[in-house]
Amino acid sequence: MKLLRYGPPGQEKPGLLDASGTIRDLSGVVPDLAGVALSAAGLAQIAALDPASLPAVTGTPRLGPPVTGMKNFVCIGLNYADHAAETGAAIPKEPIVFLKSLGALCGPNDEVMIPKDSVKTDWEVELAVIIGSTAKCVSEDTAMEHVAGYAICNDVSEREWQIERGGTWDKGKGCDTFGPLGPWLVTKDEVADPQDLAMTLDVDGQRMQDGSTRTMIFGVRHLVSYVSHFITLHPGDVISTGTPPGVGLGQKPPVFLKAGQTMKLSIQGLGEQVQRTIAHV
Amino acid sequence: MKLLRYGPPGQEKPGLLDASGTIRDLSGVVPDLAGVALSAAGLAQIAALDPASLPAVTGTPRLGPPVTGMKNFVCIGLNYADHAAETGAAIPKEPIVFLKSLGALCGPNDEVMIPKDSVKTDWEVELAVIIGSTAKCVSEDTAMEHVAGYAICNDVSEREWQIERGGTWDKGKGCDTFGPLGPWLVTKDEVADPQDLAMTLDVDGQRMQDGSTRTMIFGVRHLVSYVSHFITLHPGDVISTGTPPGVGLGQKPPVFLKAGQTMKLSIQGLGEQVQRTIAHV
Repeated sequence: MKLLRYGPPGQEKPGLLDASGTIRDLSGVVPDLAGVALSAAGLAQIAALDPASLPAVTGTPRLGPPVTGMKNFVCIGLNYADHAAETGAAIPKEPIVFLKSLGALCGPNDEVMIPKDSVKTDWEVELAVIIGSTAKCVSEDTAMEHVAGYAICNDVSEREWQIERGGTWDKGKGCDTFGPLGPWLVTKDEVADPQDLAMTLDVDGQRMQDGSTRTMIFGVRHLVSYVSHFITLHPGDVISTGTPPGVGLGQKPPVFLKAGQTMKLSIQGLGEQVQRTIAHV
Repeated sequence: MKLLRYGPPGQEKPGLLDASGTIRDLSGVVPDLAGVALSAAGLAQIAALDPASLPAVTGTPRLGPPVTGMKNFVCIGLNYADHAAETGAAIPKEPIVFLKSLGALCGPNDEVMIPKDSVKTDWEVELAVIIGSTAKCVSEDTAMEHVAGYAICNDVSEREWQIERGGTWDKGKGCDTFGPLGPWLVTKDEVADPQDLAMTLDVDGQRMQDGSTRTMIFGVRHLVSYVSHFITLHPGDVISTGTPPGVGLGQKPPVFLKAGQTMKLSIQGLGEQVQRTIAHV
């Protein structure tokens, strides 16, 4: 299934995308795509419905993040060997974990704001894992039982603030609109192998990232288990699993985003995101 | 005013502590201590009430975190010159900012769980600033207008995971129960000078930390402004402002927490916290 949330920011309703590409309203079935609705039982209940029996949504509403009510927006750093190389960093011995502010979360096609005084805003197409049920200290063997599905995430990053301003990376990762998520939560039954998905990111029509989740250092199963030993994962929590090569910081010379550009992201089977960059307001 | 939330975890109701030390139920006045209830207008509405007109709460209910609905649990690292020295770190040139998982948040007197396989769980008494209204790129001149008040925070930390496991500090800061907050939100009108508050932390009756917010490197006004340039602050968001000397890591040799110990924290004018440590479950 492809589950989504549609409507104005903060007023999104739950929906699903039917086989014909029509949004069907789920607000009569679940209060939102959060909590128990994301559990195996909750998803099975939605899967048992005939989409044709649900109200069709007309027009082309804005999409919000496909889940809500999360406690953690976890990201993994330097998780592609070739991306680590382009940034000049060593291959990590174990996953690099950081948190993005929940305030950074936005819809898949919302405008991305270049922050005030930013000169190094950069892009990162990533496979996001969406948690369906609480995972605390889970083994790799059982980790996938806690995964609801997948989505695209753009882990937008301010490189000067991330790297040159002292301390942890969190300063350059949590700005408003730095976390587009979606367009859909694609349930895991539709993703045969999360470690074999082509992924791309274009800026103004130019292909900048062209990779595959095949080259991840630490895979989805390992990451869910690993993170759950430090931070308990809750329904709706997101683990964004790192980016392949081709970020702006890795260009020679480096290239960063300006207002008025367009980013287009895709991951095989997970759809597309398109974001216009705007100046800070 | 001293505002609080009382009741079982996840089912807390809003309340205030009256002059006699009785909890008065605020659930007929505000839905919770979150969002607009924390704004200047919201707090003024509560302050205008006669506490005697509100239902008295009998018994001694558990206290939860005094605010809810936050997006960010921000912490500042190495913000006391003498604490930086004890950990062997240089004085930071600008604030070190990291995020604690919202899942770490707990009540001021809840049990603190030593995580599975942890050998270096440590304590940190801190002054927490609680945001009352949205702050984005605010100046130092206007920063305090966005502060609702203050509370005690124990920034419980797993030092091996924070320091020795690669990457950012977030791995050692976001475990369950690693963020006791409270007992109350003390509104800022009751705190004459947030940079002149005595603060202590005892472990099993032994004084380990005995400091003052006077020795902060970056003060409250600066921190609210500074953080707001990277991460937009929302009502209920917390900035925990760093710890004075005396953490376990700074002892010679270092000392860490075991199950069955008792931490007692105090900050002048903000009350006390008492936490028992327990083994992981």
